[in-house]
Order: sequence, then structure tokens, then C-alpha cells
Amino acid sequence: MSAAKHYLTDPTHAVLSSLNSLTKTNPSLLFDEKNKIIYRNPSSLKSPTHVSVVSGGGSGHEPGFAGFVGEGVLTACVAGTIFASPAAEQVRTCLQHRLPPESEGILVVATNYTGDVLNFGMAVEKARALGKKVEMVVVGDDVGVGRAKSGKVGRRGLSGTALVVKICGALAEKGVGLADCARVGRSVVSNMVSLGASLSRVHVPGKGVEEAKDEEERLGHGLVEVGMGVHNEPGCFQMKSDLPNLIKTMLGQMLDQSDEDRAYVKIESSDDTVLQLNNYGGTSNLELGAILDEALAQLDKTYGIKPKRIIQGTLFGSLDGPGFILTVLKLSDTDLGPGKSLLSAIDAPVNAVGWPRCVSGETFETSYKPPAEKREDEREEVKPSNIRLSQQRLRSVLTPALNKVVAAEAEVTKYDTIVGDGDCGVGLKRGAEATAKTIDEVKSDDIMQFFAKLCPTIEMSMDGTSGALYAIFLNSLASNMRSLSPSSPAEVTVKMWAEALSMSIQGLGRYTPAQPGDRTLMDALVPFVNTLEKTGDVKQAAAEAQKGANHTKGMKASLGRSVYVGGSGFEEVPDPGAHGLSIFLNGIAEAL
Amino acid sequence: MSAAKHYLTDPTHAVLSSLNSLTKTNPSLLFDEKNKIIYRNPSSLKSPTHVSVVSGGGSGHEPGFAGFVGEGVLTACVAGTIFASPAAEQVRTCLQHRLPPESEGILVVATNYTGDVLNFGMAVEKARALGKKVEMVVVGDDVGVGRAKSGKVGRRGLSGTALVVKICGALAEKGVGLADCARVGRSVVSNMVSLGASLSRVHVPGKGVEEAKDEEERLGHGLVEVGMGVHNEPGCFQMKSDLPNLIKTMLGQMLDQSDEDRAYVKIESSDDTVLQLNNYGGTSNLELGAILDEALAQLDKTYGIKPKRIIQGTLFGSLDGPGFILTVLKLSDTDLGPGKSLLSAIDAPVNAVGWPRCVSGETFETSYKPPAEKREDEREEVKPSNIRLSQQRLRSVLTPALNKVVAAEAEVTKYDTIVGDGDCGVGLKRGAEATAKTIDEVKSDDIMQFFAKLCPTIEMSMDGTSGALYAIFLNSLASNMRSLSPSSPAEVTVKMWAEALSMSIQGLGRYTPAQPGDRTLMDALVPFVNTLEKTGDVKQAAAEAQKGANHTKGMKASLGRSVYVGGSGFEEVPDPGAHGLSIFLNGIAEAL
Repeated sequence: MSAAKHYLTDPTHAVLSSLNSLTKTNPSLLFDEKNKIIYRNPSSLKSPTHVSVVSGGGSGHEPGFAGFVGEGVLTACVAGTIFASPAAEQVRTCLQHRLPPESEGILVVATNYTGDVLNFGMAVEKARALGKKVEMVVVGDDVGVGRAKSGKVGRRGLSGTALVVKICGALAEKGVGLADCARVGRSVVSNMVSLGASLSRVHVPGKGVEEAKDEEERLGHGLVEVGMGVHNEPGCFQMKSDLPNLIKTMLGQMLDQSDEDRAYVKIESSDDTVLQLNNYGGTSNLELGAILDEALAQLDKTYGIKPKRIIQGTLFGSLDGPGFILTVLKLSDTDLGPGKSLLSAIDAPVNAVGWPRCVSGETFETSYKPPAEKREDEREEVKPSNIRLSQQRLRSVLTPALNKVVAAEAEVTKYDTIVGDGDCGVGLKRGAEATAKTIDEVKSDDIMQFFAKLCPTIEMSMDGTSGALYAIFLNSLASNMRSLSPSSPAEVTVKMWAEALSMSIQGLGRYTPAQPGDRTLMDALVPFVNTLEKTGDVKQAAAEAQKGANHTKGMKASLGRSVYVGGSGFEEVPDPGAHGLSIFLNGIAEAL
Repeated sequence: MSAAKHYLTDPTHAVLSSLNSLTKTNPSLLFDEKNKIIYRNPSSLKSPTHVSVVSGGGSGHEPGFAGFVGEGVLTACVAGTIFASPAAEQVRTCLQHRLPPESEGILVVATNYTGDVLNFGMAVEKARALGKKVEMVVVGDDVGVGRAKSGKVGRRGLSGTALVVKICGALAEKGVGLADCARVGRSVVSNMVSLGASLSRVHVPGKGVEEAKDEEERLGHGLVEVGMGVHNEPGCFQMKSDLPNLIKTMLGQMLDQSDEDRAYVKIESSDDTVLQLNNYGGTSNLELGAILDEALAQLDKTYGIKPKRIIQGTLFGSLDGPGFILTVLKLSDTDLGPGKSLLSAIDAPVNAVGWPRCVSGETFETSYKPPAEKREDEREEVKPSNIRLSQQRLRSVLTPALNKVVAAEAEVTKYDTIVGDGDCGVGLKRGAEATAKTIDEVKSDDIMQFFAKLCPTIEMSMDGTSGALYAIFLNSLASNMRSLSPSSPAEVTVKMWAEALSMSIQGLGRYTPAQPGDRTLMDALVPFVNTLEKTGDVKQAAAEAQKGANHTKGMKASLGRSVYVGGSGFEEVPDPGAHGLSIFLNGIAEAL
């Protein structure tokens, strides 16, 4: 169950206020609260004589379909309660009283669920009996339930419905007549295949929370249900939620012509197509992008299908369900002449808040120049210095110290989980491992060659706060060390290190206000450098670093992300960054 | 924890493929995979000399910010791993090698987190050292963490960052220079207040699932955390997730000038403002709309604030977090002359997939005519008939039968939960209760007056499939009954009922292919009507209805939503619709 927690527990209030909000995000809309109808203000219609396009269905699928009311898509939408069709009387009121009377006809688009078909159908019949020109298009695009099982009912309506609504709405806006709008709408339905999958059912606001636990048992961790409907209808089967295999299975059900129970539409690589990826509502955009990437790769590789347009977003949702629906539409000729093709209808402008943002048709049609051959990122030649540090010395001192940092990862992570965001240990470990590799790549005794390898290594391997602090510090250390280069080659001395380190602490101050006492790595670094400068004794300096790190226990952070952490815990553990640095510095001292 | 289930468990692959998908949904973009940079193809730039606008930060916030790369918003974006800043080297590569070299300058927009500031800052300094014109705007818009707690760090960056990026991007596109872009960006930051709230933390793909359970204990059912950050940082405090109070508390923290620890921006009712409602990613659109409606109502009532624009959607997400952020921006003068105001920058066209769809500025600025005084929905006058049915008789026969239906709700619901979507019992109960009320409203013995009340009552009170079936059937029954009206007033007879019912079953056939044997209410209705017609015996007819309903046990559904239900259970329970109708018909038989 995706989440049994809600901001509203009264489903009626949720539906009504959600619909009402559309009149705020689109002030050209009106809301008939009694009949749950969102409709365009007659005074906002540029062509009231054009065909009116109406849709609707249960609530909980937002933005579908009330969010599509507006210029370029729907004239009006009738909403039911959550996951239930509106009553026929609501639809009747919409058709008879909420559309421009001068409209040349009304196209009603409904999803193929018995309730929707009956309620919309009854209203259509009543409106026709009063002499109105009305056509109804019923959308069934699902392939999850095969022919044997769906029987006389036909295919369910899934998010392909949004494509029908968009195409018919755009054509109506262009002045296409009722019969042609209906004909094209029906042909879109017959050229479309959709299939859903979800990691869990959704919890409906106002319902009990007990079923959430049953659901966890029904659809366990690591499993996904293929064919799960947008009203929590169980799917066809469950499988491992391994993306490549899931997409392979789904595309197979959608496109495989040898599957006699399905094979609803024959789509060949020579066909022009549109791919739609619909979010049930609760799939993160991160994963949605990854799903799209996988689907496009397999469509191309396995089926030779390269969609002309890609539409991605929540169009026909299932509350906050962690699922998605793939739809492939085969583009056919509308026979309506130039500017009225399916693609031009899909590309046509929209002034409705619910339709997902897509780039322009022109952007899809343009052949952009491939990027210029990537220039090898120019690294400035490292100017030589006279300061010497042998690889052997580097290895004998640095390697054991770096190993200590790697070994301390679990401990540092533990501390950072208590007072920070838990990534400090892994960051330090990555940096230490990368640095250890760098030592092997240094081919010169010039210390500047070492820094030239070290700085980009640290920058690339350590991200987050500590990575940047280390990188700025090491860049600064390198240029300060260079400034100490003697006139003839000489081994680096502790005094030189102390001096360069001291200057670099100043440099760091340009980028962070952190000082000792702020519970950061400065609490270890500053005492180390100060002591080293004063005494020239690395061991003593390292001991001071450790003291400084221990001293952070009980310190309140005034900088760094742990400032924002509301909880306690800072009394018991040291600052993870200071602690990690102290381990490194003491490792050096021991190895010398 | 919102959901510990994912389609991808490898976070690196998720981030890379999600970024790559942007080059498919917007073919004018290029992807530097090594450095996780999404950037505009140089050949797609209409004005490469204009200021380049660059942003970035950790991944997991999609569409922020890579989804905003495109005409009208960003020139490029640099992404880190999930919830971690990109490394400085990535940003350096972007600034030095992924922007048009002829650009007059680079504006870098970063959120105020130490890691982002340091990494972007370091890259900015390196680019400046190479002679590039670069300005950096750091966004801190959060008010959740007050001054006492955030100390030297300043305000965190939340989804207000998206507004800065949009405004600066649009101004750059209009040819505004670097210094002015940076100045306006900083002024937007200082005029903005944001606050987040969430029902739960999010689970990061690839992490263990154990913490999900701890989290459930930490932030229990019915609780919301105010001030929760977009990287799972715990919030300031927890409170009951009761929407009106939650919004009241949040707006107080954002706008109350007497809160000395906050009061970051003074916004008065005379100020022009923009409201942004950002979805963390996992809040359903249904609830998001309701949240927006509540926020707008309270902003108006309590603060006299009526935003000039409303932007709603996932802009700066937190994976699939069930939270949201409210942002109020006070509009100030840009001093850039006509066509370059903040509003015109917000309204400016966008050709980037991540920016949420909003209606045009013109739609917000137009004063649409209020809707015409609502016409009382014309009900046709009920033409009189000669068929009589007294209110007393109605009450004595119908009321006990309706009560039986109400009493059977739990049982019918139980059956429908096993084989359907669980709404059948409640639907029948609602219909029965509404019908019982209708009886009191019938003021005439003419049976047509009863039907005139009954039909719209059933249409409005029963939604879903059974509602429509009942409504179509009753409409048909009314007109068929009228056709049997004798030449002088007479009591309705069982024979008349039988005849009208029989004709109406034919009528129903125009809207549903259901026949006995399909596991629908027809399995009770048809035997009842057939037997009544043959025998004239209501009790016998009702017994046949019950037999028919019982007979549905083990029948496979070939119509109705339960067709799609994959599970078993149909062997043990009757069709809930047939069972409910049989209870009603037997109730009538008993009451006669």
C-alpha cells in the first residue's frame, strides 16, 4: 500500500476542494459544485460554435480529466466520487446546461468501465432526445486483460484516454466537425495499446488503514504487479520488480503479434508512433525518467520503434500509486488535410493546467547538429617546482593513513547517521581509496605532480560538503606550497608543510565561515596546523587534532547540514568530519 | 516512510538513465554522462551571446533542476548523486566547456547547502580565474529553521529556487545582462518565504529497508512534520495532519511578523505576490489541489493576500515524498523596463519538460464575466397519468424493503470486496436511503409523480455501475408504465407492474449486454420479472430472484468490473448486485 497517510480524511471535501482549486490555477474555469462539473467560462471561449469536448469519470485520477479543461483540450469535465463514475444526472446537467448552446455538437469521451459507459451513455441519450448533436467515444486501450478474460466487456480504459481527449480537443479547437472528431477519436482508440504496472495498491482517503498490512503481504517487497488497474484492480500477475525484465515483459504484452489473446494492434517499425509514459502519481520523477529511458531503449532495440513524440507525466493517475502505464499510439492519417494531422493535434498549444509540459513539435522535428567532438578537457601543464616528495615516501606514509580512514567508515557513518545525513563515512572512504590509487600514478618526485593528480581526484571522488572543503583546501595547499619552492631541488620539510597548511586555512575562510567550535572538521584541522607550526612535531599536532575532534562531543553545530537536524545525539558522538580527519592525521603521525 | 519499493535499486544507474531520458523528451539537449551535465545543444540556441544560466545540485529532486534545461529557463544543469551536491570538478567542466563560449556571462544559481555553495563556489572561482564573467546567486528561502537555529548558515534553499531559476532564465533569454540577472535573482531570494511539511521521510533507492519501520514509529499515523527538508532532514516539530490547522500553522511561520525568530520577509495585503505549491513528489494530485484550495482561502481570509499567479506541481521534489512546500514571493520592481517585470518573466514561454504547466498570464489577468445567473434546471412538467399508487401503500411496502437493503450493506460490501471493488453495498444503501426520503416527498397518488421524484433521486444518489443500471431501468419503467395508463383513474396492478417491468428489461438491453448467466443483477431481475409475468405471484417471483442470485455463486463474470479481478473467490459468494436486489425484492414480497 503506497501510503495510508493523508492530509484529508474526508474524501468528499478532498474532491470538491481539489476541483475548486482549478478555478484558481485557471481563472477562466467555472465550477458547478453540486454536479462536480468543471467547465470553461463561456466568455473565455474564442470559438463557442466549435464542437464541445467533454469527458469525466471517477475522481482520484487527477489531473485526468478536470485538469485538462481549458483552451486546446476539454470544454468541460464531470467528476464522480473517488474511483466511481459520476451519476448520469450530473453528466446530463453538463451536456444540457454547462456547454455553449451555440456549439455545433458535443463529443463525449468516456473510459470503458461499465459505470462510466452507462452514466455517460444515459446522459448522451437524454441529450439526443432533446435534439442535441452528441457523439460518444468509448476508450479501451488496456492490453493487460486479454480477450479471453475481458470477454464482452472489451478493453479497459487507461491513460490512453488522455491522448484521445487531447487530440479530439485540439481538432475541435481547429474547427473540425463533430462526425470527424468522433471518427478520429475512435481510430485513435483502435490504434493504441497501454499497459500498467505498480509496486502497490493505493489507499483511498477516508478508508481504514488495516488493509495496508494485508496488501504488504499480498504484493511483497521486490515484486511488481503487471496489469494493475487505476482503481486498485489487481493485475494479471506478479513478477520481480527488475526494470529491464519488467519493461521487456510489458512491451511483449503490448506489441507481440504472436500473443493471440492480445495482439490488439499491429505496430511495425515503419509506423510513426507516440509514446506516453503515465505516472500513477507516486512514482518519483527520478525513477520515471529511468523507466522512460529503459522503455525507449528496448522499443528501439527489440521492435525498431522510435517514437516521434514522447509525453511523460501524471495524466490519468491513481491517487499516489507507485505505478506507471506505457502507451504506444500508432499514428494514422486523419484525412482532414494539412495542419490537422494527429501529430499537429498533439503538438497544438494547451492552456490547461493538467496537461504535462512537453517541448514543441519543432524541437522534436529538428535535426540538431551532433555535439562537436569532445575536446580533451584542457589541463594546464603543471609547472615544475623544486620541492621533492618521493613516491616511496608518499606510499609509506600516506597508504597506512588512508587505510585507517577506509577502515573507519562504519564508525564515521554511525556518527553521521546520528547527527547528520549519514554520507560522511562513505565520502571519506571514497576519497581515501581514490587517493591511494593516485599514489601509484605519480611518476615524478616533484610535489606539484602529486598535487596535480590529487586535487582533481579528490574533487571527483568526494562529493558533498566535506569533498568540497577538502578540494578547496588542497587546491589552496598546492599553490601555497609552490610559493615556498626553493631555488634548487630540496626535500619537502615539516616546516614547509606547516607554513603551507597555515596559509591554506586562511584560504578556506573565503568559502566557509567555519571556525573551531562550530563542530566541523576545522575542529581537528586548525589545532593540528597551529601545533605543527608552533612545535614542528607531527605526533603532537596529531594528538591535538584528536583532542579537538573529541572536544566536538556536546558541541552544538552552527554550520553544516547537521545544524538543521532537530534531534539530539550531539552530546554522545564527535563531529564525524573532525573525527575522520583526526584518524587520517594520526595515521600519518604513526607512519612517519 | 513513503515507500521502500523501487523499480531500480542501483542509484547510480537510476540517476544516469533519468538524466539521459531528458535528451529523449527534449531532443535539443545533450548529456555529458561523465560529469552528469545536461546542457543545451549549441546549435539549438537562438541567442548564444545572452547570459547563460546554470544550476544544479543533488539528484532525487527531479524535475529540479535538469528538467528545467531548455529555452526560457536553464542553459545547463550539473547533477550530483542522490541528495548530494555535484563535485566542483563537474561544475568546473560545465562552466568551462558546456556553455556557449560567446555568452556574455554566466549566472550560477545554487541552493544554500554547504556542499552546494562550496562546490559551485569553487568552480565559479576557478572560472573567474580563467577570465570568465560569472556571478553566483545562493538561494535560501526556508523559514522552517528560524534564525536562532540556522545561525551563520542562513536559510536553507527550498523550492523557491525554481522561481529564481525561472525568472533569471527568462530575463537572460530576453537579453538582460549578467549584473542585472544576478541583482534580480538576489532580490527574488530576499522577497521569498517557503515552508515544507511531510507525512513521512522518503526511502532512497539502494538503501536498506529496515529504517522504514523505525520511521513509522517516529512519525506516526495522523501526524505531519512541519519544516521537513527535501533531503529527509527532520522537521521542526510534528503536529496532527489536519489540513486547516496545518496550513494555518505554516502560513503563520511564513508570514507572521511578530515571530522574531522568523519574520524573514514582510508581505502585506497590498503587495503583489506569487504562490507556488511544490509537491515533494508523492502527494496525490487530488490532495495537492485540496491543499492549494485551503492555502488560497486562508491567505485571502487571514492575510488579505490574493496571489497574481499560482504555480503548482513537482518542481523541487524529494523522490516520492508525501510532502509539499508553500512559497510566497513578494513581487518587486526589476527596474528593467517594460516586458522585463518579474511577472512577465514568470509568464514567459518555456520549452523545457520539467516546468509545470500553468495557464497564460493573459488568462490570469483577464476579468471573465461571472457566469450567468444559474437557470433553475428545467424539469419538464410531469404529465399526469391515470395510474394510482398511494403514499400510504408506498410506505407500507417500500419502506421495510428499503430498510432490509440498508441493513444488508455490510454483507454486500463483504461480497463485493471479494469479487469486485467493494463499493456495491454502500451504493445500494445510499440509493435505498434516498428513496426512503423520496416517499415522504410524494404528494400525489399519480404513480408518475412518484417516478418523477424517484428517477433523479436514484440517478443522484447511486453512482457507479449499479446506479446507472437502476436509473436507466427506472426511467424506462416510468415511460413503459405510462404507456399502460387506463382511460380513467385506477390502482396499479401486479399485472401492470409485470408488463412494464418486462418491457423495461428490453430497454436495459440497449445499454448493457448483460444477460442472466453473466453474474450481474440481471440474474435476480430477469427471473423475478419472468415469473411475475407468468404467475402474477410476487412471493414466487421473489423466490426465483433469490434462487437466481444464489445461482451466481461459482459463475464467472463476463461483464462488470469484477471481470478484471484476477483473484478467485467467485465460487464462494454470490454476485453482490444480484444478492442486494434479491434482498429488496424479497422485502417487497414480505411486506405485501
